[in-house]
Amino acid sequence: MTIISVIGAGVMGTAVTYPAADNGNEIRLVGTHLDDSIIQSCKDTGVHPRLSRPISTSVQTFFHTEIEAGMRDAEIVVIGVSSRGVHWAAQAIAPNLRPGMIILMVTKGLESSESGELQILPDVLRSLLPVSIRDHVHYAAIGGPSIAGELAAKRHTAVVFVSRDAAILPSLRAAFTTPYYHIWTSTDLIGVEVCVALKNPYALAVGLASGLLESQPPDVANAKMYNYAAAIFAQGLAETAYMIKVLGGNPETVFSLPGAGDLYVTTQGGRNSRMGRMLGTGMSFSDAVEEMPNETIEGVDTVIAMMPAIDAMTYIGSIDASALPLLRGLYQIVTRNHSVDFDFETFFSNLTFVQPNTGHA
Amino acid sequence: MTIISVIGAGVMGTAVTYPAADNGNEIRLVGTHLDDSIIQSCKDTGVHPRLSRPISTSVQTFFHTEIEAGMRDAEIVVIGVSSRGVHWAAQAIAPNLRPGMIILMVTKGLESSESGELQILPDVLRSLLPVSIRDHVHYAAIGGPSIAGELAAKRHTAVVFVSRDAAILPSLRAAFTTPYYHIWTSTDLIGVEVCVALKNPYALAVGLASGLLESQPPDVANAKMYNYAAAIFAQGLAETAYMIKVLGGNPETVFSLPGAGDLYVTTQGGRNSRMGRMLGTGMSFSDAVEEMPNETIEGVDTVIAMMPAIDAMTYIGSIDASALPLLRGLYQIVTRNHSVDFDFETFFSNLTFVQPNTGHA
Repeated sequence: MTIISVIGAGVMGTAVTYPAADNGNEIRLVGTHLDDSIIQSCKDTGVHPRLSRPISTSVQTFFHTEIEAGMRDAEIVVIGVSSRGVHWAAQAIAPNLRPGMIILMVTKGLESSESGELQILPDVLRSLLPVSIRDHVHYAAIGGPSIAGELAAKRHTAVVFVSRDAAILPSLRAAFTTPYYHIWTSTDLIGVEVCVALKNPYALAVGLASGLLESQPPDVANAKMYNYAAAIFAQGLAETAYMIKVLGGNPETVFSLPGAGDLYVTTQGGRNSRMGRMLGTGMSFSDAVEEMPNETIEGVDTVIAMMPAIDAMTYIGSIDASALPLLRGLYQIVTRNHSVDFDFETFFSNLTFVQPNTGHA
Repeated sequence: MTIISVIGAGVMGTAVTYPAADNGNEIRLVGTHLDDSIIQSCKDTGVHPRLSRPISTSVQTFFHTEIEAGMRDAEIVVIGVSSRGVHWAAQAIAPNLRPGMIILMVTKGLESSESGELQILPDVLRSLLPVSIRDHVHYAAIGGPSIAGELAAKRHTAVVFVSRDAAILPSLRAAFTTPYYHIWTSTDLIGVEVCVALKNPYALAVGLASGLLESQPPDVANAKMYNYAAAIFAQGLAETAYMIKVLGGNPETVFSLPGAGDLYVTTQGGRNSRMGRMLGTGMSFSDAVEEMPNETIEGVDTVIAMMPAIDAMTYIGSIDASALPLLRGLYQIVTRNHSVDFDFETFFSNLTFVQPNTGHA
């Protein structure tokens, strides 16, 4: 039995409480300052309003003002806030951290540092913690295809738990493993974090195809645009592998759950896909955002958070100027209201096993 | 202008005639002995009955009995038969081959040789040709996400042309490239052929998830099983990468169009997915086959054609006994009427960057 605090009562943070509770642990679910109505609902009815499902009976709930009690004696702290919420989370947990605790992140994202480097979120979180504690806790993360509502329904879900600190992985894994929650472990923190952050913008890009299809004239045989979507899917993975290489991770991570698996699941629905579809129809980003008020589109946030570092790293030559055409194109779409018009000929230029496409004959 | 003969008037063989014709080539579409009604329809109405679309005006059509005329002066011969049809095709084209011709395969599959080795189809075809000609023609193949009806509709389609003979690739590519048909080139014939053959069984396996979902009791929050599908998707790619390594190809090919891209597109519909869904509901393979009479399920054919070699290679130790649990499980399902019950804990055991999942805590 382990005491596990989960910070952030959104769908993903709450979803991991199901296997954690089924495994006999003591769980404390602490809402953020944005989660008061969720926590109130859990206290009043026992039902999580966004998951539309009862929380496990062994889960205690806490408002953000009660975080001290919510983290008391915790051995593992799960960070389940949005990518933008990491700065808040660092401040909130800092006074309650004790040496030896494990911070397990389900929050995904990449950020540009002030010095122009791309940082994975566990490193961002570490940098925001007080010097007195930051090197006395362990950092880990979860990557892989895990739609929250399915995990909460105890559907089979296969993920990777990752940490640079291999020694903590067996016990961490043991705390969460159930017959429906299948966990592999990895020390490729860079590889996993890059995969799970980039799946959001690339799933958005795959979604463009269905919008583009809607904007086409009727076809005599009702042809779809899955070939287009699949080319974007493949280019997304190729760019992910490229970024992992640049940052010093293992590009083979793209083969498995955190790369291809998570991108696949993210293309099957959700907000990134919906935003992609709208942009594909020809709607400008400014107009599309108005159709999804108050919703966080992680794919958009990630592209915007990455681009200062991508630009800086391109300037100094650590990223090739011809690399990442899809990511750069997405940035133009979501910040400059550019229309969707990728030049396929620029794709796959940084793979070693294919020759660049040198344009039309 | 190049003279291109296409052997096989099914949807995929015919689809490549559209970019080939738009590029100004002279195209001769030769049906197999199973394609007489298709060729007759093309001659009578100009419409391909299975694509539901007019063929290009510069495409001449030929019955299988007219193959000699259909291959006269051809510089490129596209093989567009089913995987089972390769033996017929070898016999049919052999008398009409001339030194220097390029054989470009869109047919996908892997076969077990009599000596217990796994063979890619271009090598199977070569072995079936007369000794007098087999080393005087060039072999190439097309891999990547390319739904025939979409290519015929001139939707953006991105593929890889692959040959061990790098010298032929630029002109081959030039003969087919159009503003909607985007072509990269590669010399990793093993990697591409393994990817495109294995995508069919693995797409079938991904389809199992939707059938399994149908067989579940209703869920309070209507949870789906995309996490399950994504885990299968990722395991399929991991097994593909493993097989490529065993056969001496470049596993990085899995990152891009022939691997992840083609698997993605194949999961979006088609016969393999439909068969997978039926099996997932609990229907036995014998019963499911009766629901799809006279239809070729390439995923099933591929698994069955591969397994003698997989077994032989496992016996001699060139394939690990713990490798390929998904492929081996599929084989049991489609030959022994086994029910669908994968042990997720056996997955991802042959990747170097994750630790094996050592079972429940």
